[in-house]
Amino acid sequence: MNLIGYLLAFLTPGAFLYIDLLAAATNALNGALLAQRPDHYRRKYFTAIGILVMAVFGGIGGGTTRDVLLNKVPGSWTNPWYLILIILAWILGLYLAWGKGQTFRETFYQFMTSFSLPWYAVVGVEKGLQAGWPLLGAIALGVVGPTAGRYLIDITSGVPAKQLVQGEWFIGTAVITSLSFFLLRAGAFGAPWALALGLVPATLIAFLIGFVFRVAATWFDWEEPMPRGIPAWLLKGQPKRETLKEKMQPGWEPSWEEPPQE
Amino acid sequence: MNLIGYLLAFLTPGAFLYIDLLAAATNALNGALLAQRPDHYRRKYFTAIGILVMAVFGGIGGGTTRDVLLNKVPGSWTNPWYLILIILAWILGLYLAWGKGQTFRETFYQFMTSFSLPWYAVVGVEKGLQAGWPLLGAIALGVVGPTAGRYLIDITSGVPAKQLVQGEWFIGTAVITSLSFFLLRAGAFGAPWALALGLVPATLIAFLIGFVFRVAATWFDWEEPMPRGIPAWLLKGQPKRETLKEKMQPGWEPSWEEPPQE
Amino acid sequence: MNLIGYLLAFLTPGAFLYIDLLAAATNALNGALLAQRPDHYRRKYFTAIGILVMAVFGGIGGGTTRDVLLNKVPGSWTNPWYLILIILAWILGLYLAWGKGQTFRETFYQFMTSFSLPWYAVVGVEKGLQAGWPLLGAIALGVVGPTAGRYLIDITSGVPAKQLVQGEWFIGTAVITSLSFFLLRAGAFGAPWALALGLVPATLIAFLIGFVFRVAATWFDWEEPMPRGIPAWLLKGQPKRETLKEKMQPGWEPSWEEPPQE
Repeated sequence: MNLIGYLLAFLTPGAFLYIDLLAAATNALNGALLAQRPDHYRRKYFTAIGILVMAVFGGIGGGTTRDVLLNKVPGSWTNPWYLILIILAWILGLYLAWGKGQTFRETFYQFMTSFSLPWYAVVGVEKGLQAGWPLLGAIALGVVGPTAGRYLIDITSGVPAKQLVQGEWFIGTAVITSLSFFLLRAGAFGAPWALALGLVPATLIAFLIGFVFRVAATWFDWEEPMPRGIPAWLLKGQPKRETLKEKMQPGWEPSWEEPPQE
Repeated sequence: MNLIGYLLAFLTPGAFLYIDLLAAATNALNGALLAQRPDHYRRKYFTAIGILVMAVFGGIGGGTTRDVLLNKVPGSWTNPWYLILIILAWILGLYLAWGKGQTFRETFYQFMTSFSLPWYAVVGVEKGLQAGWPLLGAIALGVVGPTAGRYLIDITSGVPAKQLVQGEWFIGTAVITSLSFFLLRAGAFGAPWALALGLVPATLIAFLIGFVFRVAATWFDWEEPMPRGIPAWLLKGQPKRETLKEKMQPGWEPSWEEPPQE
Repeated sequence: MNLIGYLLAFLTPGAFLYIDLLAAATNALNGALLAQRPDHYRRKYFTAIGILVMAVFGGIGGGTTRDVLLNKVPGSWTNPWYLILIILAWILGLYLAWGKGQTFRETFYQFMTSFSLPWYAVVGVEKGLQAGWPLLGAIALGVVGPTAGRYLIDITSGVPAKQLVQGEWFIGTAVITSLSFFLLRAGAFGAPWALALGLVPATLIAFLIGFVFRVAATWFDWEEPMPRGIPAWLLKGQPKRETLKEKMQPGWEPSWEEPPQE
């Protein structure tokens, strides 16, 4: 581990920024495709500029919210590369025609977005530790980074936020990654009962835990537990979710036959 | 008054934090129960983790928004006790089965939440005064603290925000408490036409005014005035609200017979 | 140009604040009237206080969001005149009875709101330049100022945000104004490929570009481009928008015959 960490340390100053930019572009493309899904616009279709707003929400919404909570100027607005990559992702999202784009978004692309989720969780906890935040605050910050962008997209679209409903351990994955990273790393900031690994090895291990968990959750359709005692008539009509495994069968396509409700 | 203030001054350094934590836990439990109400999830039921998010919104959403506006790191993220108590309130909210939980939330528990409303108003105005904000800014800050959490919950749930519709003087109570506190206290910060009471007596008096007003409003179903000139067909279908007095009759239960609309 | 700029420079210290206050009051009145439109409250009508919240969102929502992103205390909360004018605009909005108010809002008043849009764009870019933000960040900030208030109003009302759907180049106008101002002014902050005009002439030119474009867009119903490849059944039911030109015919009235959906 030490050796790998040592070798990777050479990469880090730039590498961390590159990964963060890649995560932002990934989430921006996801946002642009999501904004074109029939259940994400309501009554009126979004214009190309509206889809750009969604790409911005997806790409830097989480990081911006995190930095505002840390009382810092959001770095994704002062480093121009974030918005440049978001604009490129938006153009790509417009060119993937919607039917094809949705199939793409819900299958292979899931692996890509599974990578940015634990990445943002790790970055959030590290920033919280640097600011001297305690365990729960740092973990909460690790949850805000990967989830606030999608929250903005869903709320703006008027659909139930994916954070709150069954979404294959969306927030759960962020919590697990954040907690792992904290336990591996917080000793370096003085927490007595946590390891004190360097930034790179702690990132690698926590990232892997989160990534594997997330891919497994989407593959097997694991879901966060439901509260107990819900009457049956309330749960009626909850659509059966398809697993990533099912979606990746050749020829699978999302079914949007019915016109959008409401 | 002076004597009471003098005696209470011994309690304050800790007491103010304890009361703030209690208010956060109260609002978090309210949020967790609210998130399980049939009209607060839409089409898809919230998972246990989704309900936790709502408890966090309720517990520290208002204080966080207030601190962001003050350009400060939100204290509820750096003091771990806020999130610890919110997690406990969330677990309690999950264990109160939903039918029972809703009856509880809408009756006896109203008294508890009536206490956190004026409390947050007072804290907001005091923080505004300390930051040198003027009358209207400080009062606006006094309104943000107790109301922004419920705003986040309602917007996330896709229901009309309770701040905007008939909600028994929800924002009105915050304004009345904030204004009272300002008039009692702002002289100590140099406002020429306001009293200069100490923090503790000003808090006590303003809190009592707000608490009594809020309980009376929920008890008698006082409502903020409606704008004039609304055509009759627009007001049609506005459900008759039950007063707290009616709800506290033995055997009262909320009626959720009909499946959730939309 | 230089002479005009020189003469106008005498006005600026106060003038810029006066214009900003006027823009806030204009947007607050717009928000108060919008909140009374049948499609902007849902199932439950907003109280007078709810309409005040919408006026506050409209009046200072954009500037506040911009200042939070800049990590500054929002000036519209510490200068009492913003909230004083918003309260006056709110009272005026309540007195314009809703039918008359809506006709007014959608016709002559469009010219007034067309003025605050480029104004806020210019202010946002100038503040971004002063904080050392790069091109895209400064333009994004120029977009946040004039649009975030309406975003809050629409999201709170549960209607599709006007930023995202066809809204006569709402965000597009903000981008065009912001880009123009940047190209005219950023040289003074060291950008090598932009002019270095003074604040007043750069503001005047960029404002005029934005204002003329916006009025033309509402007059002729120009719209931002739609993404390609949308199936016909998805676009079905998109209502035909009336142009400002049509609305300003004598006797025009908005048609709200049908009860609000949902």
